[in-house]
Amino acid sequence: MGRMISATSVDLAGADAIYRPSMSRQLLLLSTSTAHGTQYLEHAVPEFKDFLGPARRVLFIPYALKDRDGYAAKARAGFRAMGYELDSIHESASPKQAIERAEALFCGGGNTFRLLDALYRQDLLDVIRRRVSEGLRYSGASAGSNVACPTIRTTNDMPIVEPPSLAALGIVAFQINPHYLDPEPGSKHMGETREERLLQFHEENEVAVVGLREGALLRVSDTSVMLKGLAGARIFRKGQAPVEVAPGAALEAWLGERGKSGGPF
Amino acid sequence: MGRMISATSVDLAGADAIYRPSMSRQLLLLSTSTAHGTQYLEHAVPEFKDFLGPARRVLFIPYALKDRDGYAAKARAGFRAMGYELDSIHESASPKQAIERAEALFCGGGNTFRLLDALYRQDLLDVIRRRVSEGLRYSGASAGSNVACPTIRTTNDMPIVEPPSLAALGIVAFQINPHYLDPEPGSKHMGETREERLLQFHEENEVAVVGLREGALLRVSDTSVMLKGLAGARIFRKGQAPVEVAPGAALEAWLGERGKSGGPF
Repeated sequence: MGRMISATSVDLAGADAIYRPSMSRQLLLLSTSTAHGTQYLEHAVPEFKDFLGPARRVLFIPYALKDRDGYAAKARAGFRAMGYELDSIHESASPKQAIERAEALFCGGGNTFRLLDALYRQDLLDVIRRRVSEGLRYSGASAGSNVACPTIRTTNDMPIVEPPSLAALGIVAFQINPHYLDPEPGSKHMGETREERLLQFHEENEVAVVGLREGALLRVSDTSVMLKGLAGARIFRKGQAPVEVAPGAALEAWLGERGKSGGPF
Repeated sequence: MGRMISATSVDLAGADAIYRPSMSRQLLLLSTSTAHGTQYLEHAVPEFKDFLGPARRVLFIPYALKDRDGYAAKARAGFRAMGYELDSIHESASPKQAIERAEALFCGGGNTFRLLDALYRQDLLDVIRRRVSEGLRYSGASAGSNVACPTIRTTNDMPIVEPPSLAALGIVAFQINPHYLDPEPGSKHMGETREERLLQFHEENEVAVVGLREGALLRVSDTSVMLKGLAGARIFRKGQAPVEVAPGAALEAWLGERGKSGGPF
């Protein structure tokens, strides 16, 4: 599973780059940890194996759920089944040091407000941003994908806690709406559809949004955003008609991502 | 439609009370403005007429939607059909003065974060609280019911804007979850059910929550919280099994409301 060091990485890091696993952004962002009719993470096993490559241990961030021990046990079982050991950051005496030493991150789903609040309380946002910019692999599901975005303003979750800010990691330049749902034609529910909510988001914000359906995932590198997984996605951009994209599509041009000419880092 | 001045009101306000429409809290809080298969506010017409009593004009708060002019026109048509004139606060040179002079308030639904952010920007929370404590009738639907609560932590809405705080009016002592939905047995959607979200709310908060189904509404006085309307509600309290209540039920004992012995004011 060798990978090439990109020209950009060499320019940035010089001779040191050759000793680092990567100098480019590597992200795997899932709509959900558990697709319908499958086990925890099962729908993404080949993608995780390809993504994690030579890493042996994954550092888990369980803050989106209240029961961190139980959540870590579930995640540990899921990653062991794929052949990886898992450490949970909540078991570490120094969460920052755990990030510094991690081979790869997996940030679990749950409540996005609770997750982001914990990242602020533990002062982990800057260290995660820096290490991801240095090539630390970041994977997440649902809330764990939401916090990779500039803000959590496209979460579906209830604001059960109040983080100091809705600004999040910003390791991608766009927003994700996980668990994206198409309108139900026969519904008697008079609340807004998901599409209506995202149109309202663009009444107040400029940034593009990927509505990731259950089972869909994004594989993000330094210069590309690839839609993969079991389902398509719907892209929302301010003032423009939504766009349907299918697994295999390259999304960077839709999303204000830098492509090969520079971007968030 | 004469009403009695309660002993409590007279104690609080002395001789002046006799000239005021009410010295006790009077609220009408709807799950939704538009129940399935009916026109805007139609399902609550008799309740509004009883609630507004001798008031001739209603002051509308349209901040939850972007198109304030369009929203005011819709609300104006709805209230005219009931026999009331409507002024929209966004047409007033001084929103605070408009609250001071209002005969009754109606706060429309939309995005709760946008609504609360506007109330903060216009510095209206304190004047609404004070006037409601003096007897100004407050009615709201959906987001307009959410902001009557201590916080907006039980909204279903997307956090498309970031208010300075999630703390809201607190003119009731409990939380409302509008558009309450029961779990769908056959759903393939792997996101949390509404009940799961509210259980997560109680992992982080103490206050009771009323899950108000579409068509349900609450009539709140100084000492009572009555469930009315077309549908039942589900009450969630921390560490206790949820409770089903039907229209006609008195809820104050479930909700930490003061009953006759003092409370939020």
